[in-house]
Amino acid sequence: MKAQRQITIKQYKPSEGFISRYQKLIKDVVIPYQYDVLCDKAEGAEKSHVVQNFINAAAALHGEDHAAIQKYLSSREQKPGDAITDSGFYGMVFQDSDAAKWIEAVGYTLAVFPDKKLEETADSLIDIIAAAQDEDGYLNTYFTIKDRDKRWTNLLEGHELYCSGHFMEAAVAYYNATGKDKLLKVMLKNAEHIYRHFVTEKYEGYPGHPEVELALLKLYRATGEKHCLELAEHFINVRGVPVEGADGNFYKKEAEQRDWTVWGNNADDRYYQQSFAPVREQSDAVGHSVRAVYLYTAMADLAAETDDAELLNACKRLWESIADRRMYITGGIGSTGIGEAFTVDYDLPNDTAYAETCASCGLMFFASRMLENYPDGKYADVMERAFYNTVLAGMQLDGKRFFYVNPLEVIPGISGIAATHWHDKSQRPEWFACACCPPNVARTVAAFGTYAYGEGDGTAYCHLYAAGEVDFSFGLKLLCETDFPHGFTVRYTVSEGGGVLAVRIPDWSERTEISVNGEKISPEIKSGYAYIGVEAGDVIELILDDRARFVYSNTKAAENTGCAAVQRGALVYCFEGADNGGDVLSLSLDDGAEITAGETVPELGGVETLKVKGYRTVSEDGLYSFKKPERIPEALMAVPYYTWGNRGENQMRVWLPC
Amino acid sequence: MKAQRQITIKQYKPSEGFISRYQKLIKDVVIPYQYDVLCDKAEGAEKSHVVQNFINAAAALHGEDHAAIQKYLSSREQKPGDAITDSGFYGMVFQDSDAAKWIEAVGYTLAVFPDKKLEETADSLIDIIAAAQDEDGYLNTYFTIKDRDKRWTNLLEGHELYCSGHFMEAAVAYYNATGKDKLLKVMLKNAEHIYRHFVTEKYEGYPGHPEVELALLKLYRATGEKHCLELAEHFINVRGVPVEGADGNFYKKEAEQRDWTVWGNNADDRYYQQSFAPVREQSDAVGHSVRAVYLYTAMADLAAETDDAELLNACKRLWESIADRRMYITGGIGSTGIGEAFTVDYDLPNDTAYAETCASCGLMFFASRMLENYPDGKYADVMERAFYNTVLAGMQLDGKRFFYVNPLEVIPGISGIAATHWHDKSQRPEWFACACCPPNVARTVAAFGTYAYGEGDGTAYCHLYAAGEVDFSFGLKLLCETDFPHGFTVRYTVSEGGGVLAVRIPDWSERTEISVNGEKISPEIKSGYAYIGVEAGDVIELILDDRARFVYSNTKAAENTGCAAVQRGALVYCFEGADNGGDVLSLSLDDGAEITAGETVPELGGVETLKVKGYRTVSEDGLYSFKKPERIPEALMAVPYYTWGNRGENQMRVWLPC
Repeated sequence: MKAQRQITIKQYKPSEGFISRYQKLIKDVVIPYQYDVLCDKAEGAEKSHVVQNFINAAAALHGEDHAAIQKYLSSREQKPGDAITDSGFYGMVFQDSDAAKWIEAVGYTLAVFPDKKLEETADSLIDIIAAAQDEDGYLNTYFTIKDRDKRWTNLLEGHELYCSGHFMEAAVAYYNATGKDKLLKVMLKNAEHIYRHFVTEKYEGYPGHPEVELALLKLYRATGEKHCLELAEHFINVRGVPVEGADGNFYKKEAEQRDWTVWGNNADDRYYQQSFAPVREQSDAVGHSVRAVYLYTAMADLAAETDDAELLNACKRLWESIADRRMYITGGIGSTGIGEAFTVDYDLPNDTAYAETCASCGLMFFASRMLENYPDGKYADVMERAFYNTVLAGMQLDGKRFFYVNPLEVIPGISGIAATHWHDKSQRPEWFACACCPPNVARTVAAFGTYAYGEGDGTAYCHLYAAGEVDFSFGLKLLCETDFPHGFTVRYTVSEGGGVLAVRIPDWSERTEISVNGEKISPEIKSGYAYIGVEAGDVIELILDDRARFVYSNTKAAENTGCAAVQRGALVYCFEGADNGGDVLSLSLDDGAEITAGETVPELGGVETLKVKGYRTVSEDGLYSFKKPERIPEALMAVPYYTWGNRGENQMRVWLPC
Repeated sequence: MKAQRQITIKQYKPSEGFISRYQKLIKDVVIPYQYDVLCDKAEGAEKSHVVQNFINAAAALHGEDHAAIQKYLSSREQKPGDAITDSGFYGMVFQDSDAAKWIEAVGYTLAVFPDKKLEETADSLIDIIAAAQDEDGYLNTYFTIKDRDKRWTNLLEGHELYCSGHFMEAAVAYYNATGKDKLLKVMLKNAEHIYRHFVTEKYEGYPGHPEVELALLKLYRATGEKHCLELAEHFINVRGVPVEGADGNFYKKEAEQRDWTVWGNNADDRYYQQSFAPVREQSDAVGHSVRAVYLYTAMADLAAETDDAELLNACKRLWESIADRRMYITGGIGSTGIGEAFTVDYDLPNDTAYAETCASCGLMFFASRMLENYPDGKYADVMERAFYNTVLAGMQLDGKRFFYVNPLEVIPGISGIAATHWHDKSQRPEWFACACCPPNVARTVAAFGTYAYGEGDGTAYCHLYAAGEVDFSFGLKLLCETDFPHGFTVRYTVSEGGGVLAVRIPDWSERTEISVNGEKISPEIKSGYAYIGVEAGDVIELILDDRARFVYSNTKAAENTGCAAVQRGALVYCFEGADNGGDVLSLSLDDGAEITAGETVPELGGVETLKVKGYRTVSEDGLYSFKKPERIPEALMAVPYYTWGNRGENQMRVWLPC
């Protein structure tokens, strides 16, 4: 039983502010550009072939003259003959999911910014996707085009369930936003096909990349279809449970029964896809970090749906493993590029971090589901940390380039070059042909309202600060005004109805003022939330702690010993060469000094910068010296981490010696 | 033309002191144990099969009844029938080289500690090796046993030239020590075979693992055989020179012509084996670090033999690349386990370092050859740094276990466990079946006298401090008394003859007193050497700077910013959990305080320890905190880096915040 639930996408309407500016960027820049990528029409982007794969799959099933193909081609102003010029499948085995994540982001976007033309474009893409669905409900262009007989024989690498999951999420988002159920029906038929195969026909196995589990739960909630819940539960229950033979390892058993592979993934590695033990027995967050948090999200969601205390306890342990021992200050997770994975407790290298953008999106998903179980601010604190730092850093300020990997230290000449640092780029790369992170940022930003607000039992939860109007389903209407994260005042006006307003007091706000209708109050704070009874007309104002402060790391995190970082509100700051004479490696902080406001940097869109007293160490020319280097006082400048890397290649550091 | 030359092994006789204790350890523990390993008789060691491979190769060539086999088996007290019970080849493709490095170490050892029984054992091993040589001079058990037709078709991975090189070094060492030339003749015949194949018959290609080049130069000097010099020159000259076809890449061309592989090495990687450009055009030390320094050693040696200024300039650039930008304070080289390789300038991670023991041995070889070109103390400084820190750290104090990898920070729970730290063990492993590092330490320690002393044109060079008697070939006899590296007085007595004594003044000794016959002198110091005219009876005393001091790293080395290390004389110190309450991550240094003598640690054999004022940071429980952690003053204890890891698993750090 959920203590509270995320609101649905249409309950929140953004008003002018930080979030709406980002949401508009998604609508105006990211979504159109990605559509061009999907159609291989984007300049500068690698060939994607996503839409062409669907056309080719539809043609393989129904012939080239199929009405949906012809209609789609005419809508795209292509000559019909273009359709099959580039036949066959091209791209990664999970290439389909790019289309799904695009539709999902479009759904959320249409809910807040209706746009007929965009909706028509999405409709026509959905038509061609529907045409690529096999008669039995199967939907995947890789196997449909290449070899139908290989369906469901390589769960380890095949990503069929992963792609289905993304289409289910897209279907729900699009349905919630537009009321149109074409894709929803396609995906219900697909879910039924999967149910038949894995539950009715008892085919052994579970997803190589968790995703469908969390998606099935969304589909269940949108449709009430019990098989979706059962199937999600089935996949979660069988993961990591020993099978007969092959040392009990399902993926190994599966690999022994087939003579082909996609990438040659190591079926023996039970950690990579979190199958080393049944999920209820797991305690450490391990393996591929995106896989991990997608799985944990579904587990937390299912635990609430089914009141499964054992499962929920596992989620709590896994949460603590991440938040208390395996998470960067930026909300990044996954310490190594080797397997894009978690490593071990307190291993948090700044320069060789993976900290994938997608993983921080997934961490937000996990946090929001934990919040549904327990309205405890600690989950929202992490959700906020991940969003305002790693997720936003994933996107260039102009929305045109994206980081997949988010290191906390970058040194041109080493980062992106040394064998150990190949993945840590010093500038956001061009959009990749198969782009997992950009659409993940897009859908997360577009759905921000659903992470920011929740509701339950006459209580309106404000987990994150997002300017706009919220229409809670129990009758309360709320207006939120704020310049957060750069402003620290949040004003809530109850425009209709009444009930309890549960406002989160962040972990970073040690000095918080709360007033109701101009009068200061000291409400009880329970697990990070102030619970305030409200009625129509009430104005609740929150003045959050606006101090920029030094942050220290536990000494168990070896990389940060002797160092401090700077944080103000939700924003972690960093030091870039651009503001600090080109060289940040020689900087150290005076952490006894006050941090003051810095100059505005026009290229960063006028974000708040900070000035910190510190030193520049002038070392000897040689590699090592007995001579104590001189330290010259210098005013250091810090910018929000999410804005780094927007001014060309330069050094960057979050943690400085102090 | 060499400015001075290493002395040969018999010119130095150790007297009681630090070096002789290590040399005795090699003789009493390492050499007997390794011989048992080679014969698969060592308890606890993995199967080696080295000697059996030679028996099997000899049997393949001459039949099981061959006299050498029978004689060897009876000498080992094995029943003749044992010989072929384990037929075939077993082990790494370069397994033979273990026998070679053992014989080399035995040679050096016999030169200083004659031992009839050990010599007989070595003789009998040499007999069986000789019996495994093919009629045409070819010597390699892998190809002789497995497939003669594949000889010389996989220089990339096959290690035939590498193994030949080690046997040439062994042959010269054994001949110099014992005067016995059986192995020398075997290897001259082998060299002639290689010369015929690569020079006379113009077979394209060069060693996948440089080694034979430096060995051929030793063989040339021991025998005067011109073909050895020519062949070394040939291999050095053709490396990296574009071939016809295969993008000019010899290894790729070779790979295209064969249908088998040993490990599937990437023939496209031109950096791994330093073939990205002709050697005279190379400037950055790249690729597999042992391969690199073995190659540079040969280049520096050849440049002196042939007065090749262009080659020597390349050596100088490569030296600077290492010593000025790519070397740990411990003299370790190779920053990554990925390819056991150099990375890029100033990339010197402490916790994920590779810093292979063998690579530091190789760095000593390179330094000693550069010294032969230029008697400049900077080369000896690095040679000393590598020896007293990384090379010695490679061996447990009891001589029974060995580090291959020498990190500068170890955290149990991360080191050896995280995917990025798999190679950085927190304790010295058992002897591996194929043991490259232990015999490399053995031969380097056993031949220490040849690195310590050199001679040229009436000048006796004292590069390193090693107690003992040196018999310079121009008639000067010198007695050196010292407790170095723990004592700082070095006394030289000229017992016979006269000339110039060139005594190195180390870079770390800023305050050095020199006296002759009790009278202080201030001789001219030229490139790090004091040149003093001496005659029989003279006593020259050197009092070196015995201060323990803090060392600072160039701020370009990101890993060490805000930190200091501690060094006294040649010894770099480290902080271990064993002496510091189990936790060194929370320690920081007061680098304004004096460093004093620490308590004796009996388990470390009474080495000098140091006491440093510092602090223990008591951080909050959580991962991150705004609260400035308390720093409690504490007396920290440091031990020489070479002694670390001798007291069970614990944390270790060389660099501490200050």
